[in-house]
Amino acid sequence: MRETKKELKVPAIKEGTVIDHIPSRVTFKVMRILDLREFNHTVSVAINLKSKTLGKKGIIKVSNRFLTEDEVNKIAILAPNATVNIIKNYEVKEKIKVSLPDEIHNIIKCSNPNCITNNEKVKTLFHVLNKSPLQVICHHCERVMESKDITLI
Amino acid sequence: MRETKKELKVPAIKEGTVIDHIPSRVTFKVMRILDLREFNHTVSVAINLKSKTLGKKGIIKVSNRFLTEDEVNKIAILAPNATVNIIKNYEVKEKIKVSLPDEIHNIIKCSNPNCITNNEKVKTLFHVLNKSPLQVICHHCERVMESKDITLI
Repeated sequence: MRETKKELKVPAIKEGTVIDHIPSRVTFKVMRILDLREFNHTVSVAINLKSKTLGKKGIIKVSNRFLTEDEVNKIAILAPNATVNIIKNYEVKEKIKVSLPDEIHNIIKCSNPNCITNNEKVKTLFHVLNKSPLQVICHHCERVMESKDITLI
Repeated sequence: MRETKKELKVPAIKEGTVIDHIPSRVTFKVMRILDLREFNHTVSVAINLKSKTLGKKGIIKVSNRFLTEDEVNKIAILAPNATVNIIKNYEVKEKIKVSLPDEIHNIIKCSNPNCITNNEKVKTLFHVLNKSPLQVICHHCERVMESKDITLI
């Protein structure tokens, strides 16, 4: 019995989105940003795939969903080298390189425990100072954060 | 460009485990029980796949990992109809039907807020009263719980 037999295979998607070149360790965070656990069409995720450029990469495939520009840009916060492939009729119709937004609204936490966003019901907002390497500044307390300091809300 | 081209495909696994027939909604919980997010070989997961018996099912494939009997039994708590396929050299060598253990140690929470396990550092322990439908009893407070009451620690 081949492992590739039908019932054990993840089918190729007909219409949807493939997010490729995600650093392996943030793959499930990207799932969270896009609320994919709650999505009701087929979603498949793989981590620790071999990648020449990233070492280990993750891939996410989602059937019947196309991302908004805002969603594509959110991905860039965690996975600045990701590519978003738009699939139509089993073919890659478009390949989008993600791009960091200038402002990041209510996605990441401020690392300053005294920041108002950690103490009152105030949404977080960061301005992107530098895209590579990533450097952001909190709109409220001016804490500067780098990639390693970033955690999701 | 076919979506099935090499870089977008999740490769079949050479050695490892395929967990099939997981109810879709608990697929990521099964990942958690097995600590698969932290595993450093290829792991792929798909949810909302069509299934004749389950409506929607999830599948988890893990390279280079074989489950212990204890792990297989843990899966049964969330996915009593799951099958665990052991893959060797790309072929399904063995198909194990999961089976509920008689005792469940420190995996699920007691739903009784006054239970000692929710108030002191005491590990949870449940005895399985009935396997289908699932019914368990807390060793400490004797709260009886069904499938719908079960949450993971």
